[in-house]
Amino acid sequence: MPLQRKITLEESEIPTHWYNIMADMPNKPLPPLHPGTQQPVGPADLAPLFPMELIKQEVSTEKWVEIPDEVRNLYSIWRPTPMFRAYGLEKALGTQSKIYYKYEGVSPAGSHKPNTAVPQAYYNMKEGVKKISTETGAGQWGSALSFACKLFGIECEVFMVKVSYDGKPYRKIMMNTWGATVHASPSNLTNAGRSILAKDPNSPGSLGIAISEAVEVAATHDDTKYSLGSVLNHVLMHQTIIGLEALKQMEKAGDYPDIVVAPFGGGSNFAGIAFPFLQNKLTGGKNIRAIAVEPTSCPKLTRGVFRYDFGDTVGMTPLIPMYTLGHNFIPSPIHAGGLRYHGAGAIVSQLLKDGIIEADAINQTECFDAGLLFAGTEGIIPAPEATHAIAEVIRQAKQANEEGVSKTILFNLCGHGHFDLSAYEQYLNGKLVDYEVSQEDINISLAELNTPTI
Amino acid sequence: MPLQRKITLEESEIPTHWYNIMADMPNKPLPPLHPGTQQPVGPADLAPLFPMELIKQEVSTEKWVEIPDEVRNLYSIWRPTPMFRAYGLEKALGTQSKIYYKYEGVSPAGSHKPNTAVPQAYYNMKEGVKKISTETGAGQWGSALSFACKLFGIECEVFMVKVSYDGKPYRKIMMNTWGATVHASPSNLTNAGRSILAKDPNSPGSLGIAISEAVEVAATHDDTKYSLGSVLNHVLMHQTIIGLEALKQMEKAGDYPDIVVAPFGGGSNFAGIAFPFLQNKLTGGKNIRAIAVEPTSCPKLTRGVFRYDFGDTVGMTPLIPMYTLGHNFIPSPIHAGGLRYHGAGAIVSQLLKDGIIEADAINQTECFDAGLLFAGTEGIIPAPEATHAIAEVIRQAKQANEEGVSKTILFNLCGHGHFDLSAYEQYLNGKLVDYEVSQEDINISLAELNTPTI
Repeated sequence: MPLQRKITLEESEIPTHWYNIMADMPNKPLPPLHPGTQQPVGPADLAPLFPMELIKQEVSTEKWVEIPDEVRNLYSIWRPTPMFRAYGLEKALGTQSKIYYKYEGVSPAGSHKPNTAVPQAYYNMKEGVKKISTETGAGQWGSALSFACKLFGIECEVFMVKVSYDGKPYRKIMMNTWGATVHASPSNLTNAGRSILAKDPNSPGSLGIAISEAVEVAATHDDTKYSLGSVLNHVLMHQTIIGLEALKQMEKAGDYPDIVVAPFGGGSNFAGIAFPFLQNKLTGGKNIRAIAVEPTSCPKLTRGVFRYDFGDTVGMTPLIPMYTLGHNFIPSPIHAGGLRYHGAGAIVSQLLKDGIIEADAINQTECFDAGLLFAGTEGIIPAPEATHAIAEVIRQAKQANEEGVSKTILFNLCGHGHFDLSAYEQYLNGKLVDYEVSQEDINISLAELNTPTI
Repeated sequence: MPLQRKITLEESEIPTHWYNIMADMPNKPLPPLHPGTQQPVGPADLAPLFPMELIKQEVSTEKWVEIPDEVRNLYSIWRPTPMFRAYGLEKALGTQSKIYYKYEGVSPAGSHKPNTAVPQAYYNMKEGVKKISTETGAGQWGSALSFACKLFGIECEVFMVKVSYDGKPYRKIMMNTWGATVHASPSNLTNAGRSILAKDPNSPGSLGIAISEAVEVAATHDDTKYSLGSVLNHVLMHQTIIGLEALKQMEKAGDYPDIVVAPFGGGSNFAGIAFPFLQNKLTGGKNIRAIAVEPTSCPKLTRGVFRYDFGDTVGMTPLIPMYTLGHNFIPSPIHAGGLRYHGAGAIVSQLLKDGIIEADAINQTECFDAGLLFAGTEGIIPAPEATHAIAEVIRQAKQANEEGVSKTILFNLCGHGHFDLSAYEQYLNGKLVDYEVSQEDINISLAELNTPTI
């Protein structure tokens, strides 16, 4: 008989509820503040941007939130996702540790992002919203939301960071194929975009700028709402479907992780796989180490400060209590576009502050080394974001070997690299470079902040 | 409760044997002939190109051939693949028919091709082969073999049709990422390539030319064998894993198809899903219609002749009894590169001749219409090859509606379109064209044939 490599679940085993870690946190995150008054925001402040059901989820402390049947039904297009034992990687590393990964690249958009795009589009549809605006960097989130909006018959307007718009035409076409309209950001369509272009007509754009544009469109159009792919509490909660499935799969495998690892951009990838395991830890059950992995070129968790900051560049979003490098920080152009974001969500920031989770930062060459090894041993070519988790897993497995112990390690393989092959080409041709962030650059960015400290 | 959309199987339900339809065919295919002597080829003739185990499988009439454990183990990287009920498509069509599809795009190479690449690489590895040469058109087969060779530590050398090599750089990088060497074909590395270049230095290449080059490399190097991604009997047999799983999944769904549909290039895609259902039909069990769908621009099944022809352009392969347009026929540059092949495998040709299967031909604009509808209703963006099956399914569902009946239709969604988005862009911009093949062109190509008639 072959080894047990793949642990599957039936469609009927798709979890019925998302897990809301707010219920179990020893210290709840501080409230978001209004960008103008700097007072805590209420539902009415958020109503121009989000449907009421998502606003409720954003502030909910209910531990389990039911997943609507229509969402579970569409989840079944790609969920439950498979969990694999990485026998090939283990053998190549010569490790006695056991490595498992949850593979989210089987979704039609190729990443974990549809896990929240589908419920977000659903709640908007239920409340009669005709159009959703959003931003996208490398294109994973924009693809996911385009896909979800198409399924619910909602228009989708995407502001795509200009440098990615020009460099990743396939992602744009993918969104068009699902019926979305895609603009290069900064654009001439918004005040935010025009103000950036006035300063720099050749601006390559950034996620922060694109968020400003998308938020402005929603705020100024009655029939349009805004949607965010990470950072916010409800987004992180939707992603817990990943870890909730992984819990069942671990049980089927007769195992339980000592360490859970995920890439870290705004927090939804990490939250998705880690929070359901942290639930046990926070409620007196089994302990784990949960490690969030960020790129060294965008090190908000390992080198940022914990204070209030904006989610966007122009300063239109609520102020969020977060680990941040400052909302004007422009990360170097690494290939893991999904991790190029200046801040971390409020919940993950609080958990890091309280020592409940850990963070590590890794250079992209080490990540691509790991990605190539993974492609050659496990067969799947990982997205650049996902290689950060793989690199950390390799670090942990090597350390366990040095200590003469065996660890059980689970990580989130959040997407495939089909749209990132030019990055692999650079790597194979020896042209991939690492970017160091000087402390001076971080200090300059942070010195510009006039947001409330904590 | 959500609808039952996805029908899954456990890893332990991966079939243990491939199905060899030769055992049940009322008329076995005529033997392949030696290209020089025009006498039936024996194992010794094929030994320079293939490992002995595959030669045995090529001529075997044993009904069930055991799948080695090491192959089943690697199959579990992506198998069992999911089967879906296409509720979204059914609703959009307003049909009373039930539509199911088997989704092979979840493999790391993105198509059904690894189903035979992995066992082919395995048997080569077992017999000590160090290197495998092959051809690829759009890149699906080359990717699959690169992936499989990497897993078994075998070198892989791919001759990629030049027009695709230039136009689909991501497929090339994907092969490189799995360690393969990729040459644009025609190349200066072989006599076959040089002879083509001497006639036309700007030749865009063709699958037939690339096969000639890959075969020559294997025939002239002791440590190198050749591998083909379709047409041959053993290749079709390996693909029956698709239909064997689908049989189990249909049983789980409490259903059975009236019609099975698949795209048709050389035959492996179609054979993969249809043969296990034809087994019932051929042995007195349930009847089905099995429809092979080819592009109108390469209509060997619907407008070709049944006679012996070469598998390649230069005339190095054995002569195969096939439906063919002539081995010098150069298909128009449609986007479904995997269907641009002049001939059909011996088994499928015999089945068509005997009226056991059917064929239909569809223009690429109708196929892309179907592909867009599918992406918007089922969520998955299909490969151009796969859109041929979808277009036929829509034809059949509409016809059933007109007749006031309900049919159960199953098709093979053989791959995703992540590497074909420029084709979707052309379509969305209204720039996609259809290619008509004149009877004169077919007549000219066939008149050049001096191969044995049947």
